[in-house]
Amino acid sequence: MSDWNDPNYVRIFDTTLRDGEQSPGATMTSDEKLEVARALGKLGVDIIEAGFPAASPDDLAAVKQIALTVGKQKRGEKPPPVICGLARAVEGDLDKCWEAIQGAERPRIHTFLATSPIHREHKLKLSKAEVLTQIEAMVKYAVSLCADVEFSAEDAGRTELDFLCEAFQVAVDAGATTLNVPDTVGYLMPHEIGSRIATIKERVVGDRDDLVISVHNHDDLGLAVANSLAGVMAGARQVEVAINGIGERAGNASLEEIVMTLHTRKPALKLDHGIDTKQLTRSSKLVSRVTGIQVQANKAIVGANAFAHEAGIHQHGMLSHQSTYEIMEPETVGAPKSALVLGKHSGKHAFAARLEELGYQLEPDAMKKAFKRFKEVAEKKKQMTDADLLALAQDELHRPVERFQLVALQVSCGTGDLQTATVRLKTADGDEPTCAAIGNGPIEAVFEAIEMAAGVQLDLLEYNVRSVTGGEDALGEASVNVRGPKGTPQAEKVFHGAGADVDVLVASAKAYLAALNRVLAAREAERAAA
Amino acid sequence: MSDWNDPNYVRIFDTTLRDGEQSPGATMTSDEKLEVARALGKLGVDIIEAGFPAASPDDLAAVKQIALTVGKQKRGEKPPPVICGLARAVEGDLDKCWEAIQGAERPRIHTFLATSPIHREHKLKLSKAEVLTQIEAMVKYAVSLCADVEFSAEDAGRTELDFLCEAFQVAVDAGATTLNVPDTVGYLMPHEIGSRIATIKERVVGDRDDLVISVHNHDDLGLAVANSLAGVMAGARQVEVAINGIGERAGNASLEEIVMTLHTRKPALKLDHGIDTKQLTRSSKLVSRVTGIQVQANKAIVGANAFAHEAGIHQHGMLSHQSTYEIMEPETVGAPKSALVLGKHSGKHAFAARLEELGYQLEPDAMKKAFKRFKEVAEKKKQMTDADLLALAQDELHRPVERFQLVALQVSCGTGDLQTATVRLKTADGDEPTCAAIGNGPIEAVFEAIEMAAGVQLDLLEYNVRSVTGGEDALGEASVNVRGPKGTPQAEKVFHGAGADVDVLVASAKAYLAALNRVLAAREAERAAA
Repeated sequence: MSDWNDPNYVRIFDTTLRDGEQSPGATMTSDEKLEVARALGKLGVDIIEAGFPAASPDDLAAVKQIALTVGKQKRGEKPPPVICGLARAVEGDLDKCWEAIQGAERPRIHTFLATSPIHREHKLKLSKAEVLTQIEAMVKYAVSLCADVEFSAEDAGRTELDFLCEAFQVAVDAGATTLNVPDTVGYLMPHEIGSRIATIKERVVGDRDDLVISVHNHDDLGLAVANSLAGVMAGARQVEVAINGIGERAGNASLEEIVMTLHTRKPALKLDHGIDTKQLTRSSKLVSRVTGIQVQANKAIVGANAFAHEAGIHQHGMLSHQSTYEIMEPETVGAPKSALVLGKHSGKHAFAARLEELGYQLEPDAMKKAFKRFKEVAEKKKQMTDADLLALAQDELHRPVERFQLVALQVSCGTGDLQTATVRLKTADGDEPTCAAIGNGPIEAVFEAIEMAAGVQLDLLEYNVRSVTGGEDALGEASVNVRGPKGTPQAEKVFHGAGADVDVLVASAKAYLAALNRVLAAREAERAAA
Repeated sequence: MSDWNDPNYVRIFDTTLRDGEQSPGATMTSDEKLEVARALGKLGVDIIEAGFPAASPDDLAAVKQIALTVGKQKRGEKPPPVICGLARAVEGDLDKCWEAIQGAERPRIHTFLATSPIHREHKLKLSKAEVLTQIEAMVKYAVSLCADVEFSAEDAGRTELDFLCEAFQVAVDAGATTLNVPDTVGYLMPHEIGSRIATIKERVVGDRDDLVISVHNHDDLGLAVANSLAGVMAGARQVEVAINGIGERAGNASLEEIVMTLHTRKPALKLDHGIDTKQLTRSSKLVSRVTGIQVQANKAIVGANAFAHEAGIHQHGMLSHQSTYEIMEPETVGAPKSALVLGKHSGKHAFAARLEELGYQLEPDAMKKAFKRFKEVAEKKKQMTDADLLALAQDELHRPVERFQLVALQVSCGTGDLQTATVRLKTADGDEPTCAAIGNGPIEAVFEAIEMAAGVQLDLLEYNVRSVTGGEDALGEASVNVRGPKGTPQAEKVFHGAGADVDVLVASAKAYLAALNRVLAAREAERAAA
């Protein structure tokens, strides 16, 4: 394991929980954030950007929790990951950021100010000199709180190169040790990134070995990974990435693609990284699950077809050598060639052992519930695959506080006119509101019946359902994105809900109810704060 | 409109119908291929690689049909697209390719032979000299059939550079005018592609202005777009791409990303292209629909979030200038800001006019059926969006020959134990087999009842359902991938089926039946050939 100060070591800075969470609809609960942070720690990420503490008390609490847990856990010989929080270059943000991260063994403040002409004029309404003054004051203030400070020049990609170097010099003189060069709007091409980084390295870093240049690229033109690579080849030693490449708009550079490029092309690049590549597939699936953002089949590294070769294609004849058409083995990224099969005769030990192999250590209570659910599902299904187990385990881990539980659902539907759903819910008080509703399809009838029983009207933005495994008796996973009731603050936010069941309609009901419970939890939190 | 011989014009070579169709599960019917080819013509693609005629009589027929239709249609001032067929460097393939494409106004043969050591040794079992001899003989033979010949050195990315130049020189001397440099396994990085292309340009092309270098990149490391761009910057003037970046494994460079890079960065690159960018969104949706391969929300240019900014994010404050966070306007790629709303009061004229605006000209019969269906759905739905209309139109265009039709479906399901589906089908003979089945969920029950009624057992590989539009009363689209009955040749192939309905279970039944009808059509075709 290389030391991260080694000149050939590329630090992996993961922003799935910060920029990734800014993807429309990807909002995660605190529990889900913690679960993702645990997976990132296990994956070997060097720096976890855990959130933006000044955004809301919830965000602050989530970052704090990650700092106090994942931020203190040694990983074999490796130290715990750096836990980083984002903060605008203003005292209030910096204070909240420090409050959130200080419990970590290795805390970092990541502060930013825009430097490009368009942002200076239209957003900040500051002159160049005023921008420099603010950088100096706020980086100094950040350093007074935390020894490890990263400074980002927002929209660096469109900033005049001389002024950009000037801004970074001010940040370095004020004590920042990581200089991040974000292409905020995903505008640059690899050769342009490369020459910017080379200039910054020459003019600002010079021979100081305590300074690290970082790149942060967006994928608006499909160039984020190549741009990050160009930055590294020009001397950057930190890349800011997200699992599955999620993030604002077209997202960030994808962690798995950057890492597998460093890994597969190591003989040419001669660079090291600290990622356990075998964890990539599992991490990708976890992030898909909690954010509701699926990866496409042809996504590099983690897509369903990434290692698939179409059978029945005649032109190539039989392959006599694997590397003829493959540069990586699926096992390298933890994509198993064969799925382990558990069934209704499997015991609790086998179940727990397999879950642990898959990276899940459930608390005794959650384990008991998950096993009970496993037996119920195993009764109905021919076989239980790893994906089924993961869905079950995650259902136990990520269940939000349940204002309403689903007691029973009955649906009658088809090509006729009358699509009917009957739903019985249960409240914390023990009430069991029961309602029937009709709809133009069974899903509409189910959602309508749930809304009637709960007395809450939501605005459905997106609905998806898919089978986790191959067969028709597979566990179905449904996910919904909704907005809260019109005229309330919850109408401004997107809430995600997911549910799994062998019946897609039941899975859909669970997903809708999960989203509804989140809306109610947000409403209660808001009332408590008021 | 630039002439395509202009030294700054980059030719867009689309392989959605060839390499794209090799994506697992993406098999398209001849009608679907024709529909995609029409869209590619309208999009302004310079060369359409329509298929691999020697692969099967069906493939040959599909390419022939495209050559005779899209290959003869002028596009305003532009000539029809070049219609290209792929062929191994053997006489039989070249003959079949020529048979398929000769009806086009501008036919092209694209022939290939592997040149890398690993392919020479393990696949071809040929020496370097034997490879060169075969290239010379087969390019000469191709040129004797067709004036426009492209030669690809398969796995060029891992071929010794000197030998690669030698191979291309032989191809040029034999009459090839387009030299394609595929990175078949998606292994190279942009700087490596750039230096290869520069060397080939210097050593093989020299000052001949009738030769064009082409790049063909795969996305296994997420670098396909950047690699293609690096090729173009080093002198390549043809890029081989696919809509949505589909293709073998992680797919090809994505057409929309390359085009929007050329477009957005034109001031820096100073290169032209002939694509009507406003058609990009529609083309992407069409390809998603017929292949069943969805694009992820964070896919550049055509993903649902590509132009979305998360509301409620506090850090940036109100935007006072669009370009602060946006380098392209959604309208440029044909992603509308507001959806047009048609309802049950809309007439046939408004319906037809809107479909035409969306690029669909249905035959009178299909239009009549689509409008009837529109009125049925409009009765049930609050509003009909463009996506709903497209789904309806495509349902009429792409309906495979129907051995079995769905007459009625009734489902009873929920959290109880007894999930039941009753299905009535109708055969071409007028029989109406009716069966009931139980399952672990409603989908399983529906599929089982269909299999019983049709007397055919399929192997379900993948099942997806999603709502086309936002609301819960939106048209649901289901898609399935299946294999044919075990022990038959159809078990070796993947068949795709899609269906749309306001009821997801009815949509699922339609999708399963569509796939089943395709399996039966393949079985009949095979029996007819035997």
